[in-house]
Amino acid sequence: MDLPSKYLNEAVEQFASLPSIGKRSALRLVLDLLKRSPEEIDRFSNAIKGIKENIKYCENCGNISDDKKCVICANPAREHRTVCVVEDIRDIMAIEATRSYRGIYHVLGGVISPMDGQGPEDLNIPTLLTKVREDKIDEIIFALSSTMEGDTTNFYIYKKISPSDITVTTLSRGVSVGSELHYADELTLGRSILQRLPFESTFKSK
Amino acid sequence: MDLPSKYLNEAVEQFASLPSIGKRSALRLVLDLLKRSPEEIDRFSNAIKGIKENIKYCENCGNISDDKKCVICANPAREHRTVCVVEDIRDIMAIEATRSYRGIYHVLGGVISPMDGQGPEDLNIPTLLTKVREDKIDEIIFALSSTMEGDTTNFYIYKKISPSDITVTTLSRGVSVGSELHYADELTLGRSILQRLPFESTFKSK
Repeated sequence: MDLPSKYLNEAVEQFASLPSIGKRSALRLVLDLLKRSPEEIDRFSNAIKGIKENIKYCENCGNISDDKKCVICANPAREHRTVCVVEDIRDIMAIEATRSYRGIYHVLGGVISPMDGQGPEDLNIPTLLTKVREDKIDEIIFALSSTMEGDTTNFYIYKKISPSDITVTTLSRGVSVGSELHYADELTLGRSILQRLPFESTFKSK
Repeated sequence: MDLPSKYLNEAVEQFASLPSIGKRSALRLVLDLLKRSPEEIDRFSNAIKGIKENIKYCENCGNISDDKKCVICANPAREHRTVCVVEDIRDIMAIEATRSYRGIYHVLGGVISPMDGQGPEDLNIPTLLTKVREDKIDEIIFALSSTMEGDTTNFYIYKKISPSDITVTTLSRGVSVGSELHYADELTLGRSILQRLPFESTFKSK
């Protein structure tokens, strides 16, 4: 793609470096920006500068935060002895949106993935192990992706914490709520048969 | 979507203001940026600042340029008396990629679209009319989108230039090269029958 300006080209290159944005889409985005006022452009570029300068990570759980502790960890009404282990902050947002969880979180920042050169040392695991050692946790809930990498990471942490008087749980897997049975994939359907539940438990809520 | 940081929120809002990027995609892009080094973030935000500060428009045709004249208008080997009228610079790139055109361009910056509040006065039409009046053009080629708005714009300019000794042409419309006939839409197929060409003209190139 031959662009008529090197500044345009640089902006397009930068946008095209973002995930799932190709050169053509990047050009469309930059041309849209070009139509805006200098103030709007400034606001955009300052917003990007701002993320690195201002965004902090919660010292307790690794969630993104403007303060030392994120809003969830700083909330005394949450159950601080129940920790849900997630991959990144989008998972926190997804779980929070269900309004079914009152504990706190622990953000790993990814999963163990040798293919991508990401080992346990690249993840936010040590602080979790420290919390376990210092006896601050009653239950750990694994809420990582249901992939090989997610399962590996679950197992790695499980081995490290060598659970004695700590409960370790994981999200239940099964047929989606509201979906027709014959659309479920074999693995999911198989798991939901093997891990079948007492019928009463599905309508008697705690 | 409840984000745990106002700086994150601001960056997400900005990305979500771009065309065809929703809040979820915007968050994904910002989280990707967050993983980068401060230098990379700086480069990104400077590239955006740079487009407004450095990009100029060719004084002759309205194409994006780093100098007073764009590379096409500055090229003496181009036929400067043949002008192809396009909507934006992406159309120039598309036509240049065909390597079939040796003239110059004129970028309108859009089409007449009352629905979007865009009238003729918002477009780069006066400079084109001046060129016509000063007898600098032999042929004008309309290469706007084949939509109601594009057709309206063509007709508006056609009326304004009241062609006397100037040739006005438009892109031929018809069945795509390489496509099967029964996949063509009715309008296109209809046009390609009404505007059928002498068979010899399709293999005798000039």
